[in-house]
Amino acid sequence: MEKEYVVGIDIGGQSAKIGLVNRRGEIIARKTMDTTKYGTNDENIFMNDLCEAISAMIQGAKTREGEAITMESVNGIGIGAPNGNFKGIIEDAANLPWAKGKTIALAEYISMRMNIKKVMVDNDANNAAIGEMIYGNAKGMKDFIEITLGTGVGSGIIINGELVHGADGFAGELGHVCAVRHNGRQCNCGKTGCLEAYTSAIGVARTAREWLDIDKSIETPLRSLEIITSKDVGEAAKAGDLFSKRVLEFTGEMLGSLFADFVSFSAPEAIILFGGLAKSWDFIAEPIKRAMESNLLSYWKGKVKILPSGLPDSDAAILGASALAW
Amino acid sequence: MEKEYVVGIDIGGQSAKIGLVNRRGEIIARKTMDTTKYGTNDENIFMNDLCEAISAMIQGAKTREGEAITMESVNGIGIGAPNGNFKGIIEDAANLPWAKGKTIALAEYISMRMNIKKVMVDNDANNAAIGEMIYGNAKGMKDFIEITLGTGVGSGIIINGELVHGADGFAGELGHVCAVRHNGRQCNCGKTGCLEAYTSAIGVARTAREWLDIDKSIETPLRSLEIITSKDVGEAAKAGDLFSKRVLEFTGEMLGSLFADFVSFSAPEAIILFGGLAKSWDFIAEPIKRAMESNLLSYWKGKVKILPSGLPDSDAAILGASALAW
Repeated sequence: MEKEYVVGIDIGGQSAKIGLVNRRGEIIARKTMDTTKYGTNDENIFMNDLCEAISAMIQGAKTREGEAITMESVNGIGIGAPNGNFKGIIEDAANLPWAKGKTIALAEYISMRMNIKKVMVDNDANNAAIGEMIYGNAKGMKDFIEITLGTGVGSGIIINGELVHGADGFAGELGHVCAVRHNGRQCNCGKTGCLEAYTSAIGVARTAREWLDIDKSIETPLRSLEIITSKDVGEAAKAGDLFSKRVLEFTGEMLGSLFADFVSFSAPEAIILFGGLAKSWDFIAEPIKRAMESNLLSYWKGKVKILPSGLPDSDAAILGASALAW
Repeated sequence: MEKEYVVGIDIGGQSAKIGLVNRRGEIIARKTMDTTKYGTNDENIFMNDLCEAISAMIQGAKTREGEAITMESVNGIGIGAPNGNFKGIIEDAANLPWAKGKTIALAEYISMRMNIKKVMVDNDANNAAIGEMIYGNAKGMKDFIEITLGTGVGSGIIINGELVHGADGFAGELGHVCAVRHNGRQCNCGKTGCLEAYTSAIGVARTAREWLDIDKSIETPLRSLEIITSKDVGEAAKAGDLFSKRVLEFTGEMLGSLFADFVSFSAPEAIILFGGLAKSWDFIAEPIKRAMESNLLSYWKGKVKILPSGLPDSDAAILGASALAW
């Protein structure tokens, strides 16, 4: 029997989203689990409930022709989780009480319980890269870098058609390369000057706040907000606010100048942007390209594409995880 | 018949060095060709002469037991050349008159003429990385970065046991990542602030000269030299000169802080230093490690090795090229 489906699972601190995905990247069944109720010692209860939820979802699913779908037509299960590692484990995930300070052998458990060979685990950014290659804007590409711009900045690096995991599985921490070497901002990771400290959602909001504090004469609708978010910056820019546009331009320039260094490393065909900030595409794409181009070695000038993700925003995590399982 | 040998060739503007290499990395026969006599349109004459030199070398070679060696026992031919590309070509090599502004299909020519299937071409830094993996200090490693510190700074990146070539074959230009973002030194590549502008042999000499010009009170034997070279700096450091030690310390710190970014990219098991500056190991190794460690994300601290190359200095280029052909 041909394996026509994969299961994609996105595990987070609030919920686990499960989807049954076909080869075209369509989610034909889904289920959501509340993950807030699992405490420190509940890893086995959580994994048991997860398996039951997968089974229930598949039992309720139907093919286009209205026929029942069974586990036999499922090629594998792909899972995205905080601190998920390609070795099939979750390792010390601070946001998941049952996985904090522990190594959870998630793939092994699910594989045994569900009687399915292929169960893959990785982190969100790596999954987004694989998802991009299978369903998104990197179809047919063998060398590209997916940059995820969210609360933090992550990345998944594809070289010669394969994810780069490195010697320990942690490769691709491009949010923590050094963007500003002297007097750089404090980053959540403990270092200073990281790219993430400037170009994550938090970094963008921080740029806006810092600039407003420095120059009291700047007029912008953002000034009246008690807390500025990157979403506020994006929306104000769309509404024509010049200050917000300048904040996004600065953010794009910083990304672009670092992208030139990434190109020196792996010579990708494209760098693809995924996540919240990518929604401000009209304001960051040009500054990114300009800054990258002016920092590239001559033989790369004009050759490296900067693209937005082709994954649908709401289901990207499920799709990305599912892509691991083809 | 078992293929017990490979041929390694190092093509440069002054000479081409050819060696017959066994599996242990021993060069059992060698030949050197003068390359200064080949002009703009002499690519075919050069390639013809090169093939004749290879044949002559093999005809003159003997096994340990004194038996003749034939082409049948040669597994392949590996070639290192300026602007050598893994596609088997030399592309617009400024230092080779017969390859300037042209694409020379070197591998194809030699393969046909010598009637041998496996003919590989790549650049020196990539070959050094492969050589390190087969004969040197990266034996058994699947993820490491070879940094070549010479007149320029190059690199060969190994991920999952394979050289990273990228979408176009030019990956691994780590000498041209940005080390100093503002008021950086002019680099030969046209950009400013490149790692190479500070940590190549020329960069080291420049640091010494700049510092001496800024502070006339510094006492060092280097001050009396009309032209300071990095070799002078290394030798003065070995003789106890504090100023030269400080120049090398600065160089090491700059390398180390960039190495932390390289680790964020590919999470290598080791970064291996090859070339002239690696001879000043006692003065640069500690600053490199210190600067790298203080810029690493927590899970890499104390885990990434910094090693000197294990390739014998004089024959590294032949060995590296030959390693391509196993």
